[in-house]
This record gives sequence, structure tokens and C-alpha cells, in this order.
Amino acid sequence: MRAEIIAVGTELLMGQIANTNAMFLSRELSELGIDVHYHHVVGDNQDRLVELLNMVLNRCDLVITTGGIGPTMDDLTKESVAEVFSKPMILDEESKNGIENFFSVIHRDMTINNLKQAYFPKGAKILKNPNGTAPGCIVKDNGKMVVVLPGPPMEMQPMFLNHVIPYLSDHTGDVIRSKHIKIFGIGESSLETALMHLIENQTNPTLATYATKGELLLRVTAKANTEDEAISLLEPVSNEITSILGEKIYSYTNESLPEVIINILYEKNMHVSFAESCTGGMLTGMLVDVPGSSKVLNESFVTYSNEAKMKRLNVKEDTLSKYGAVSEETAKEMAMGLYNATDCDIAVSVTGIAGPDDSGDKKAGLVYISLYDGKELKTIKYQGRSNREYNRRFSSLNAFNMIRLHLLKN
Amino acid sequence: MRAEIIAVGTELLMGQIANTNAMFLSRELSELGIDVHYHHVVGDNQDRLVELLNMVLNRCDLVITTGGIGPTMDDLTKESVAEVFSKPMILDEESKNGIENFFSVIHRDMTINNLKQAYFPKGAKILKNPNGTAPGCIVKDNGKMVVVLPGPPMEMQPMFLNHVIPYLSDHTGDVIRSKHIKIFGIGESSLETALMHLIENQTNPTLATYATKGELLLRVTAKANTEDEAISLLEPVSNEITSILGEKIYSYTNESLPEVIINILYEKNMHVSFAESCTGGMLTGMLVDVPGSSKVLNESFVTYSNEAKMKRLNVKEDTLSKYGAVSEETAKEMAMGLYNATDCDIAVSVTGIAGPDDSGDKKAGLVYISLYDGKELKTIKYQGRSNREYNRRFSSLNAFNMIRLHLLKN
Repeated sequence: MRAEIIAVGTELLMGQIANTNAMFLSRELSELGIDVHYHHVVGDNQDRLVELLNMVLNRCDLVITTGGIGPTMDDLTKESVAEVFSKPMILDEESKNGIENFFSVIHRDMTINNLKQAYFPKGAKILKNPNGTAPGCIVKDNGKMVVVLPGPPMEMQPMFLNHVIPYLSDHTGDVIRSKHIKIFGIGESSLETALMHLIENQTNPTLATYATKGELLLRVTAKANTEDEAISLLEPVSNEITSILGEKIYSYTNESLPEVIINILYEKNMHVSFAESCTGGMLTGMLVDVPGSSKVLNESFVTYSNEAKMKRLNVKEDTLSKYGAVSEETAKEMAMGLYNATDCDIAVSVTGIAGPDDSGDKKAGLVYISLYDGKELKTIKYQGRSNREYNRRFSSLNAFNMIRLHLLKN
Repeated sequence: MRAEIIAVGTELLMGQIANTNAMFLSRELSELGIDVHYHHVVGDNQDRLVELLNMVLNRCDLVITTGGIGPTMDDLTKESVAEVFSKPMILDEESKNGIENFFSVIHRDMTINNLKQAYFPKGAKILKNPNGTAPGCIVKDNGKMVVVLPGPPMEMQPMFLNHVIPYLSDHTGDVIRSKHIKIFGIGESSLETALMHLIENQTNPTLATYATKGELLLRVTAKANTEDEAISLLEPVSNEITSILGEKIYSYTNESLPEVIINILYEKNMHVSFAESCTGGMLTGMLVDVPGSSKVLNESFVTYSNEAKMKRLNVKEDTLSKYGAVSEETAKEMAMGLYNATDCDIAVSVTGIAGPDDSGDKKAGLVYISLYDGKELKTIKYQGRSNREYNRRFSSLNAFNMIRLHLLKN
């Protein structure tokens, strides 16, 4: 089954809101095994909406619209669907009573334009809206189906989940299951090269890679008649990916790197602490983003100046003047000093040139990360870019990944 | 001029991300006086993209695409535009050097597929991408224009603002000038009420409000024949807004709150320091986001546990057990302890329930912020929501605004 999604509303074309409805519906439809081929946004303009509906109904089986079913004159979605299918608009008494009742409950007078919401293309299946005044509907004609939903997500989402999914499930045969594999430490193009034989030969399951801010997500999706069959299609592909990427994979669910770290630390009853220079609090902040982070974190230091590095972390003045604040030597002393100053089990320091400008002969993006656990002292060095935000975020992710790899081996 | 926006990427059709690029571009185009008639999203599928491009080029003057210009095999936007205009793809040596240079700076080997990003439809104007590897381009043919931009907002937005707007302005007759007024400490609907008489009577200049994560931006835009004329239209409206909103306005340029704070502190040769509990590094991190923050920040503490609050900030055990970690008393002791422990001029502490869960009889979102400068000790309290991310970000913004108001009066 092929679907297209049409959002109706001039506010979308003016850029006042993002089309999050299309995102929600796409995710839900893909879980149902329905392929979404296009999203469209059109303003509150009946001619353009009718033109668009005619075009998309020519090439797909299912159209889902959101928005344009309220009480005002420029709400024209149902009227446009009726025009395309050459059906008259008919008053639905039950919907009329529902709308009148809604207004009496909130103690407001119902203006007459609200009755517009009780008219539907003839023969439509009506979808109740307990969260607003405008009911939705499903109109079928000639093997094509149009599902008309309200615009506000708070009304649209429950209507879709409670009424449309059961309806659509009766109309499709397939079961779709996906596996999300999250990866760190390899670029998107190298990942594609590493998995080229799988990507080139994909039919079922299919593979897709998504890069989001330094992390990579690989989604493997299988389509089958039963859940068991879908899972048994996923298994061998997932295993092969594991054998190729090994410890570059940090999650088989949709966890973030900080979530993975927190779970491992919590299991081992360990605490981490950070001494941040160029990341300036972002690293600790990303950990604290996750509810429950207090179980593994007591404190951190942002030691931005040289004085703070000496005073809080016992970095030697000599080290700073000889090697500079951005050096392997300083990173190491920061991690050891942090370990000694706090009661953590793993101390991690980050020092680097956040950028955008270079600092003397050290290029923007040069970063050292050290980890000390009372026995082992490790340091990684890498070269980022001239983009400050990128460098700080990528440094934080590298630090989390360093902790993850350390914990895997200990 | 009529425009349509096409976003390319299967990840959008799978519902993994929302099409925020279309929102951004729509807003910008409407400021330029260019009407956007449709948004479309299409997957990484050349046939469908070509079909869509042919259709939209039939009815509009300008098409803007986002996404599908990266190094992988399924990035096909430029190739599709070339097909539609029957132009060959040509290697651009400068772009090739740029990409090679990008990889040499980050010390990674460039895989060969990256060169794909240096090919463009013949005759295209190339748009540099300092924030990524894929340059964009503008292709003109037969009175139609296609602007090809990268998908990541971090790359797309600066490319549009710095290169596409000036280019498009040359193609429309008017001079358009905007004033950005940034506001903190009032909700969007209250702002609209306060400025209702201006909003209702707007023709030229126009007013638009944008709420972004706790901060408000008011954009006043004038359209005229000359720059002087546009500026003289802006002036009286801007003055009236100032007289209504007063110190709720923190910038007349596009500065962020942390940038404003850093500039004032630097002028006064002062340093700030933070003691963060619920914000967990985010507050310091937002300051360090700004290049040059080292001029006003030496260090901060993330004191997440009670022990850390006592050890680093000298908070009394008695205070913690009597009033709790989230209390006015603790916030005050944190700020004073921080001031005494460091060599800062302004010490700011934040303690609160980040959420999403309540903590005993204290509701998620309850936050205390204290400021101490060696003489004055101030505290603000407010109640946020049950959303962890919102609470932490809003706490950070409130802390910055508290510093701003303090500095204005001292």
C-alpha cells in the first residue's frame, strides 16, 4: 500500500510551525508496513488542495490529510475531498449533537459556524474527536482511501492511534519490524563502504543509515507475514553487521551514548566525574540530560582558566608553561588530579581548542581526552574542525565513548 | 515570485525527523516577499524527485531543495536537477580542493565517494559550505531557479542567510530591512497582547514574533525603495516597542542572552562563576558556547550531590537537612560559598528539581537561583514544568537574565 500525507494550513507555509504531524504519521505508517512516498503542505486554498488531491490520488492508494477541518471559512479540506470524489456534503446529526454538547460542557455559546464541522462527504466513516470540536473522517471511493484528520497534534494523534490504525490494519497484510543499531567512531561514508555488500543487495530486510550530530543510526527493517518471520529475517543481517562493526556498536535499542554509560556505571555501582576545559560543562550537561544521572555523578569541575586547572586539579604550572593547556601532559594531570580530588571511580578530563580560531600553532579542533581510574591512565587525541559547536559536541561524545570502551574491557 | 520547497530524504518519510528546514525557509522567504505555495518531501529516489521537480517547475519560479547532496550513493538531488534541466554534471576544482582540505585538517582519509560532492550541474553558481563537506548551488534555466542546499540545519541555515538571501534580493526590486528585538521575561501571548495595537495596524513595517526555547524574538521588517527609507520606517516602531517593553528587551541585534552577558562583563572587566545543581553544566556550557567566553569565566562547579555542595561550596549540613537541597537557603549558601571559593566578581547558583518526576512535596520544575557579588545577595524562585529539558534550559536562561538585570543596575 502506497501513501502520501497532505498537511493543510497557511501557517505551515508561513513557517510559523513545523509539520510534526507528517513525522508522527510517517513513523506510524512505516510500522504498519505502509510506504509513504511523499509529504505535501498546501495553504488554505481550495483550488490548490483539489489540484493536489487529484494528482496524488492518481498514483497512490491512501492519502492522509491533517488540518483544515475547523469551523472557519478557510477550513476547506472535507469540501475539497468531496469535490474530488464528486460527493455531496451531508449533515451528520450525531456530530452536530456532539459539538453542541462540547460547548455546553465548557459553558460557552456555540457560534453558528461551528456546525460546519458536522458536515461530511456522503458515505464517509466519521471519526470522533474527544479532544476538540472537529471530527475526522475516512472517505473511500474506487479503491482509493482518504483519511481526514484535525491539525492540532493533541487531537490528531489519539484519533489516528485509536481509530485509524485498527481500520488500516484490516486493509494490509504485512508485519514490519525494525532494529535500530547505534554506532560511534566511524563516519557515514566509511560505514557505507564497510557495509556496501549488504546495502547493494538489500531487498528484505532493507538498510538505512542516518547521521545525527556525530552519532550514526543504522535501521534494518524487515517485512513479513508474521512477527516471528520478520524477526528471523532481521537476525542474520544484524549478526553480520555486528561481526563487521564490533565494538563500534554501542546500542541495539535507541539509547543515546550517555544513557548507555549511565546504565553500565549504575550496574557496576560506579561514579564518574569530569574536568572540562573546552567542553565547558557540556559533557556533564549531556549526562545530566538523562533522568537518573544522579546515581552515577556526584560532581564535576569546569576548569577553564589555567589557574583553575592548578587550584582544583593540581596541574603543575611547569606542565602548563612547557606543554600548554591543550596537551597530552595537561590532560593527564587533569584526570589524575580530578580522581584524587573527588570520590569518583572514573575521572575524565577534556582539554582542547574549541575554535573557531586556531591558538598559536595548535589548530582549532585539537582535543585531548584523558581517563584515569586509579590504575590505568589513557589519553586520546584527535583533530576536529573550525566549528566550535561541532568540536565541543564531538569531544563530549568521544569522552563518553572512551568511558564505554574502558568499561567494556574492565 | 512564487516558490515551492522540496526536502529530500527517506529519513523524513520514515518519520525520524521533522521537516524544520521548510519552516525556516518559509519564514525567511516570506520576509523577502516571496510567496511559498507548497512544501514537498520526497525520499532518496531519483525518479520520484525528477517527476516532482518537473511538475513544480511548471508552475512556480523558484524551487529550494534541502538534503540529498552528501557523499553517499543515495544522495541524488544535484543529479536530478541536472537531469531536469538537461545539463551535464561538471567537476568543480575549487570544491574538490575544499573537500580534500577538509579531510586533511581532520586527519582522516577521504574516501573516494566524497568527490561526488564536487560535481555540479553545468553553469551552476556554487555556494560554499564552511560547516560541512557538501557545497550547495544555484541553477538557473529558462527563467526558473533551483537553489540546492544541504540537509543539516547547521549547514543549511548559514548558507541560506549568507549566500542565498543576498542573491535573491538582487532578483526582487525592493530593499528589505529587518530589526531583531530579543526579549526575555514575558510569554508569547502576553507579548502579543502588549503590542496588539501595533500588530493589528501593521502594513509596513510588519511585526512577527518567534518563540524559541524560552526566548522571544520580535522581528520588525520594512520594505522600501532605498535603505534609508526602510530604516526610517523601522525607527518609530522600534522606539514604541522599547517604551512598552523596557528592560525585558535584551538585544536589538541577534545576540543570545549569554553573548549579551559576556559583552557587559568584559566591558566591566568582571568574571562570573556558576555552581550548578539541576542544570548540571548546561549553564556554564551555554556561556562557553560563545567564542571569547574565557575572558569572563575562570571556572564553575557542578555540585550534583549534597556532599559536593558541602565540600566545594561550604553549604551547611544543617541547611540541607532542614530545608533540603532545593531551597532558598541552600541556593544562597551555594552562591556565597562559590564567591568565597573562587576569584569571581559575580557568583550564581542554581538548584532545582529538573524532573520529570516530583521530589517529595516539591514539584518538578521548582528552581531557586541565587546571585552574590560580595555585597548583595539575591534569590529568585520559579515553578517550571515536568519537562526536564525545558526546566534545565529555562533555569539557565533565567540565571543569565538575572545577571543581566543585576549588571544593568550596578
